[in-house]
Amino acid sequence: METIHIGMIGAGTVGSGVLKILREETHRIEKDFGLSIVLHSVCTRTPDKVLPILKEFPNTILTDDISKVAGNPEIDMILELIGGTTASEEIVVRSLQAKQTVITANKALLSEKGDSLFKIAEENHTEIGYEAAVGGAIPVIRAIRNCLAGDRFLGLYGILNGTTNFILSKMEKENLDYAAALRLAQEKGFAEADPSFDVEGIDTAHKISILGSLAFGEKIPLQSITTEGITKITRLDIQFASDLGYRIKLLGLVRKLDGKIEARVQPVMIPVQHAFASVMNETNAVYYKTAYAGSGLLIGKGAGALPTASAVIADLVYYASRRKKNLPLERNRFHRATISEANQTEARYYLRFNSVDQPGVLAEIAKVLGINGVSISSVRQNESDQEPAEVVVVTHPCVEASILASLGRIDSLDVILEPSIAIRLEDKL
Amino acid sequence: METIHIGMIGAGTVGSGVLKILREETHRIEKDFGLSIVLHSVCTRTPDKVLPILKEFPNTILTDDISKVAGNPEIDMILELIGGTTASEEIVVRSLQAKQTVITANKALLSEKGDSLFKIAEENHTEIGYEAAVGGAIPVIRAIRNCLAGDRFLGLYGILNGTTNFILSKMEKENLDYAAALRLAQEKGFAEADPSFDVEGIDTAHKISILGSLAFGEKIPLQSITTEGITKITRLDIQFASDLGYRIKLLGLVRKLDGKIEARVQPVMIPVQHAFASVMNETNAVYYKTAYAGSGLLIGKGAGALPTASAVIADLVYYASRRKKNLPLERNRFHRATISEANQTEARYYLRFNSVDQPGVLAEIAKVLGINGVSISSVRQNESDQEPAEVVVVTHPCVEASILASLGRIDSLDVILEPSIAIRLEDKL
Repeated sequence: METIHIGMIGAGTVGSGVLKILREETHRIEKDFGLSIVLHSVCTRTPDKVLPILKEFPNTILTDDISKVAGNPEIDMILELIGGTTASEEIVVRSLQAKQTVITANKALLSEKGDSLFKIAEENHTEIGYEAAVGGAIPVIRAIRNCLAGDRFLGLYGILNGTTNFILSKMEKENLDYAAALRLAQEKGFAEADPSFDVEGIDTAHKISILGSLAFGEKIPLQSITTEGITKITRLDIQFASDLGYRIKLLGLVRKLDGKIEARVQPVMIPVQHAFASVMNETNAVYYKTAYAGSGLLIGKGAGALPTASAVIADLVYYASRRKKNLPLERNRFHRATISEANQTEARYYLRFNSVDQPGVLAEIAKVLGINGVSISSVRQNESDQEPAEVVVVTHPCVEASILASLGRIDSLDVILEPSIAIRLEDKL
Repeated sequence: METIHIGMIGAGTVGSGVLKILREETHRIEKDFGLSIVLHSVCTRTPDKVLPILKEFPNTILTDDISKVAGNPEIDMILELIGGTTASEEIVVRSLQAKQTVITANKALLSEKGDSLFKIAEENHTEIGYEAAVGGAIPVIRAIRNCLAGDRFLGLYGILNGTTNFILSKMEKENLDYAAALRLAQEKGFAEADPSFDVEGIDTAHKISILGSLAFGEKIPLQSITTEGITKITRLDIQFASDLGYRIKLLGLVRKLDGKIEARVQPVMIPVQHAFASVMNETNAVYYKTAYAGSGLLIGKGAGALPTASAVIADLVYYASRRKKNLPLERNRFHRATISEANQTEARYYLRFNSVDQPGVLAEIAKVLGINGVSISSVRQNESDQEPAEVVVVTHPCVEASILASLGRIDSLDVILEPSIAIRLEDKL
């Protein structure tokens, strides 16, 4: 029987979940895995939330002093569950330098400071487990690391932010506009008071930078990811997408083409009959294409106390079994990817123009598109007599540059009232 | 740099795939994982298929003598890729006794003889990797083993047989009857000349016995799985299901209720908007519910040379890193589950009765259902004037025993022309 001494830092939502699972499952884990888990310390500045459950861990030390946990030689493994990137970085550095294993659910920390942290881990021959940092309970890190080890990734696509997927789902299913759906998300606790981190796509960018780096074996820095959120998506776009047989999803995506990595966060339209499009509300999913395994899709809970804690505990058990066994360390440091400047692959686009309702508008739009080599597949216009008129164009496959050039010109026309919308159709998933 | 010496036994479809991946990826695996893979020997009685590619492995020994590979002290790891349960058992036993690691894609062998093989592995402190045996390239074994290690399974549901899922998909999408869809599957190479192993659900039973045992930590013997195939499913049932908002899938399922395991293979109806229902054609999927991670769905290629080989290579890399590291062995031996006699959970059922077209038939059916405590939710009858009339009843939730008792009585009525059909509605996935 091996024994692992755990120090938990941060006792908020995820921490409470971890304590609950430890209370219920420690005995079974001991029996099934031959691993005795001892919760040595819990470090928090706000112990109120966990005081009741901590009564069931009578030998556990409760402290608010990080230095008594991170780096404490009596502790083998740190669960870093505080989030943020300042205090957490200090904790993780101190822990790694003391050769403690670190388990974290902190995607911002790994996305922004992973390089230096993984280096320190390597120098101290210890490991960082982060299954909980991306996609919550979806076993995506382990799948990439172990199950597709002999394979070669061609593309990786993630619905990785529950808040935005919830908002888009409610806009469609309950016919809400963006603001109302956001309010609903806030009421249900899925969105923060300041939702920009989620709705601007930054959270997704953090996660896809971690996943993409691991899958492609090339470092994809956060700063290299072209990021667009969902704030410009209207109920109209959702409705038009549905009429066309598509559903709008905010994707983080990484693709490799001609040796270059395309890394993006953007709303795209997915064919509604594709299983990826059926991922609704706060659920997360990762879709991938590889050279040999072909395509695969992993769907599950992306957040929440217990799902995230489940992933933390899985890492706890996994990395505990690897300590001091002279195993080759897992790879986390990669040379920097060559990022492609723009989207080079051809795709169809959905374009929506908000214009005055007068003869000749469509002709002007079509002319500009034609000049830029964008060929039109279909056109729709809503039937209302009121202004503004909404003109929707679906193009034949073309490169993004042609779309951007066209919109730049079209948006300067007097008849166009608002910035035009372009959404890529992911027909080839 | 570690070196692993591989012996491959069997060089058919999967073996060819393994050779192809090794040819392309050996160098990258060396670089990424610090693992040098040496293909020591290939053992096959039909070398024609692999002779061309073997020219690119000039130092590899080609033999038809199993004893030169299984148990050869120069070889660390055996890839058992011949299938069947007789020769393969001998190979695996001999390999394990020589402390070779065994990687296999052979679900029949593991399902039928796993108990004794895992015991021999344990006695020799070596391991058997079998990610490729269930769900092809879907990372389900690793997900259960490592990613849900701290969790507790409540239910596991698999679309695990590509042949039957292809047949059901074609029956729906191309409006084919069962025989025509089976022929199409045979033409495309998805079904054997004698398809009974697939269409009777036996292949699915093998796979769900392996997955279920691992997930619940209790041995679910093949013989304890109530198994029903798809041969009785008609185009009519598919059509009625669709009209009702459902899709028929052949599921292997394991659930735990009151300490007892329910283990079954049977066609069920899944709500069409559920992502699990969108798994079409030869694609496989595993859906699970756990106490903490909640629900999850893994979708991917369940068979084929390269997808299966991708899983074999992933296991190769994973288990190579674990050899001789004094790690706790993975758990594969479990106490025998207590299997519940029948389906105790309540569910709605779809019932189809093939009857003479005369007044009073529905009244007779309804009467029997009522006597057995089965309450009717809705009734449909096809509009044709021709006999036989097809009467479809959807029930309110009830236990299976009531359905079976009702059908036993109803099928003895003179007005009933063919055995009646009952399909469970899985509304609570």
